[in-house]
Amino acid sequence: MMSKLARYIPILDWGRRYDRASLGDDVMAAVIVTIMLIPQSLAYALLAGMPPEAGLYASIAPILLYAIFGTSRALAVGPVAVVSLMTAAALGQVAEQGSVGYAAAALTLAALSGAILLVMGLFRLGFLANFLSHPVIAGFITASGILIAISQLRHILGIEAGGATLIELGEGLVANVGNTHLATLIIGASVTAFLFWARRGLKPALRRIGFGPRLSDMGAKAGPVVAVIASTLAVWALGLDARGVAIVGTVPASLPPLTMPDLAPDIIAQLFLPALLISVIGFVESISVAQTLAAKKRERVAPNQELIGLGAANLGAAVTGGFPVTGGFSRSVVNFDAGARTPAAGAFTALGLAFAALALTPLIYFLPKATLAATIIVAVLALVDLGVLRRAWGYSRQDFAAVAATIAITLLFGVELGVSSGVAISVLLYLYKTSRPHIAEVGRIKGTEHFRNIHRHAVETDPAVVTLRVDESLYFANARFLEDHILTRVTEDKALRHVILQCSAINEIDLSALESLEAINLRLKEMGLALHLSEVKGPVMDRLKRSHFLDALTGRVFLSQHEAVAALSNEAGPSSAANTKKES
Amino acid sequence: MMSKLARYIPILDWGRRYDRASLGDDVMAAVIVTIMLIPQSLAYALLAGMPPEAGLYASIAPILLYAIFGTSRALAVGPVAVVSLMTAAALGQVAEQGSVGYAAAALTLAALSGAILLVMGLFRLGFLANFLSHPVIAGFITASGILIAISQLRHILGIEAGGATLIELGEGLVANVGNTHLATLIIGASVTAFLFWARRGLKPALRRIGFGPRLSDMGAKAGPVVAVIASTLAVWALGLDARGVAIVGTVPASLPPLTMPDLAPDIIAQLFLPALLISVIGFVESISVAQTLAAKKRERVAPNQELIGLGAANLGAAVTGGFPVTGGFSRSVVNFDAGARTPAAGAFTALGLAFAALALTPLIYFLPKATLAATIIVAVLALVDLGVLRRAWGYSRQDFAAVAATIAITLLFGVELGVSSGVAISVLLYLYKTSRPHIAEVGRIKGTEHFRNIHRHAVETDPAVVTLRVDESLYFANARFLEDHILTRVTEDKALRHVILQCSAINEIDLSALESLEAINLRLKEMGLALHLSEVKGPVMDRLKRSHFLDALTGRVFLSQHEAVAALSNEAGPSSAANTKKES
Repeated sequence: MMSKLARYIPILDWGRRYDRASLGDDVMAAVIVTIMLIPQSLAYALLAGMPPEAGLYASIAPILLYAIFGTSRALAVGPVAVVSLMTAAALGQVAEQGSVGYAAAALTLAALSGAILLVMGLFRLGFLANFLSHPVIAGFITASGILIAISQLRHILGIEAGGATLIELGEGLVANVGNTHLATLIIGASVTAFLFWARRGLKPALRRIGFGPRLSDMGAKAGPVVAVIASTLAVWALGLDARGVAIVGTVPASLPPLTMPDLAPDIIAQLFLPALLISVIGFVESISVAQTLAAKKRERVAPNQELIGLGAANLGAAVTGGFPVTGGFSRSVVNFDAGARTPAAGAFTALGLAFAALALTPLIYFLPKATLAATIIVAVLALVDLGVLRRAWGYSRQDFAAVAATIAITLLFGVELGVSSGVAISVLLYLYKTSRPHIAEVGRIKGTEHFRNIHRHAVETDPAVVTLRVDESLYFANARFLEDHILTRVTEDKALRHVILQCSAINEIDLSALESLEAINLRLKEMGLALHLSEVKGPVMDRLKRSHFLDALTGRVFLSQHEAVAALSNEAGPSSAANTKKES
Repeated sequence: MMSKLARYIPILDWGRRYDRASLGDDVMAAVIVTIMLIPQSLAYALLAGMPPEAGLYASIAPILLYAIFGTSRALAVGPVAVVSLMTAAALGQVAEQGSVGYAAAALTLAALSGAILLVMGLFRLGFLANFLSHPVIAGFITASGILIAISQLRHILGIEAGGATLIELGEGLVANVGNTHLATLIIGASVTAFLFWARRGLKPALRRIGFGPRLSDMGAKAGPVVAVIASTLAVWALGLDARGVAIVGTVPASLPPLTMPDLAPDIIAQLFLPALLISVIGFVESISVAQTLAAKKRERVAPNQELIGLGAANLGAAVTGGFPVTGGFSRSVVNFDAGARTPAAGAFTALGLAFAALALTPLIYFLPKATLAATIIVAVLALVDLGVLRRAWGYSRQDFAAVAATIAITLLFGVELGVSSGVAISVLLYLYKTSRPHIAEVGRIKGTEHFRNIHRHAVETDPAVVTLRVDESLYFANARFLEDHILTRVTEDKALRHVILQCSAINEIDLSALESLEAINLRLKEMGLALHLSEVKGPVMDRLKRSHFLDALTGRVFLSQHEAVAALSNEAGPSSAANTKKES
């Protein structure tokens, strides 16, 4: 009973073995992550079009719920860049940014996303995420990173400009670049430059001025916090807000409020598809991070339980004034590097952020939005990896097509169409490829029992026997192709008496393909040729035995290709083979 | 030049070799087919909701155009049952049956369908039809046959009742069955009974009363003509039309009119998807008939040229007052059996039908609609084959699911959703299956070089070496599954030093799977295990060589599984193998 419950509520497992050593490490990690998360949460709220406090709220209840239901020891849940961008795209279709309806719709989106993730977890549908191929994910994240970076330029320039696609964003920037606000630009550009430098240069600089390696490392990660403090002080000291620098302004000092998402049928209908895409993308991003970190400690994460953990986290966001969340890369890596040992580290982080939401919000009144935008830009540009195009091109044209289309469609038509098209294109390319299988004619490599392609290897063949190895499962999409290929091959050849299908690469024969095999058998029979099978796999053979195909087969079924050729090369014609069938 | 042109216009090829013997046979076949087609064309026009003459028109220009562009010697093109039902379903969404808009929309539908087929042919997209699996087609045709038969009952009963789904049709019949018109029912029931008997009993009966075998055979096929003549005479002689028996009435005596389909963007938008489905279903039906008949004479048909032929036929229907057409099963078989040798037989049939349209229409004034409905019912019930459910169940649950869902959705939600769902379900089931591949652990069958599943065969294995044979291509949908499976298998096993992936069934490794293999290689390395590959196929190996995977591989690549086990069983540990890589 207990162990079954613990499968769905992992805290019951690790919580009972929790000790003082873990506590110390977890609290230390939590302090570091909290400091890092304050500016990040505010920034991603800005990106999602939400008020800044929503970013803090979205990091509190979700982290606590993930600590109870999640399986990763190091994953830190909260707003992340790509999901925040997708949230803005989804909400922009139903309400105006800044309106009451917008924030309400964000709750609905989080609730829907939570429900979808939970259902996927309970029905063990985590495998569905596998249909997002690695190149499609890489392409999608790269294109999203570009869109996010460009969308934040308006805060750096201090102008009004919107849009969800490259063209809209570009037009908005070009039309308004004349209104650039100089003081804002100076802050934005300096912070951006500082953060870029801090990523690489801050740690060695701290070492040089005498800090220890561990402290230098932590200090380098606090770069954004330094930028936040410095730029806030600058605005306050110089009164730049009165000169038109956009600031965060009044943020209510409060614990996360209790909210009830609007679940009216029409808003659910409008947001269901975006919520589904957000759920799947969020899950894929989160599970990749969780698995990478777990592998470093020889641990495993349970994908379907992760869905439940993320589902609970999003439902938590929906009832505490948040918006969709998932496991983030940078925050999780920081948590891991800072020595977090259990999900309790997340719980302590939540406490830290709750304290920030309650007590520190007056301090960020003068924080310029340009600083937050700079934080986002520097973070997302690390996600942009156009090299994936080159790597895919070098490996296969098909993977290249998928990744190029995903990038292009995401940039030109937005995130939702981008990721859907990516999945559709990779599935269609796979189906197209399997519908035209590679069929090799094989012969025996001299002195072995091994058979390979006659065009690639020096092999022995018998003019009366042709062996075709079909390099694909036989199913409806390629059944007719096989029929055409075999009949075209044999009609040219007068010396032929036996056709062997080497089935070592045939993992399935569906009903359509079975009917094609029956047709092939019949046509070959009419031409005086016998059809044999070799190396039929167990599961395929089980299936064939349930049909009448083996009764009608003019030839035999051989356990190995070697046996088949040995038997048939000693025979005169096909007729003598017709009655002795043998199972593989 | 000539031969290239002849590829697209096959008449240039067979037309030059046309002789007197062919002429005689073709004219004879045309006479028989014409007699059969007159009632059939009228009936399918009724089914499509079109005026009766449209059925004749749809059989004239399309046959001529197919004779020029088509490749089948025996295929007879015109209105067929399933496509007529789909036409009625599509047009019912844009106009009322009997209205001017309805007939105009039929022209648009034929034009769109023709254009789609032509484009598919010119771009050689005929393979797309392969995604309709045999069970899905069988299920769809069976369900369509049931819907057609039930939809015609209203004409037999002489009542008003409509509907496109089983439930709508059933409700319509139940609500109106009280208004059954007795004289109509008597005609309808007698004709139905006669036609059912004629299918089996007429030929022996004719033989018994002294007709020769060939004449009896032809006479039996004239059953519908006999029914048409007898019931028409009965209505005329008894004045049944005045007593409320619905008759065909005035049909204009005219050659097919020249018509211009309405190509306004909004009607195209409404009809595009139905036209696409009609095109694909029509093509699949037609090509199946054409290939079956061609095979009997050891001829081949060219699928992409067939698309061009059918496209031209539908464009012809669009400009001569018709509606969508395709190659029909019964008319083509009759044409073939009657001895048609070339597409010229079709041209002569067109002449016969043109004569009928011009001169015979006054004779069918008194033809009762119940007779046409009976003709349809008897024809389509021959298409209904619920045995496909049993056969699919016996062979595979997956094929059964596809066929059962296609039948159920077609009956309950109509033809368009039925066929689309059938395709979607079979593709999704295939993807699901390939996403969870069969992975067998294999060992050597004693005294051979052949390796099979340790759970199915008595085999030899080495405790330090495990060989896993993955029975599927590795691609994004199963990349993670493989990773999980291998790591789960090896972590239990302390004696293990070598892991061999036998790649004989791996027909492709895409970029996602390559990244998973890299991860597997790394994890195994961390555990002190070497990863080897055996029996990698040529095209897969070509691809791997273009990546860095082989440089990082901790083990070797063996040409055959036998070599791999022989080499590794004599080794102490994985390290000695690390630097001698060998190509397969």
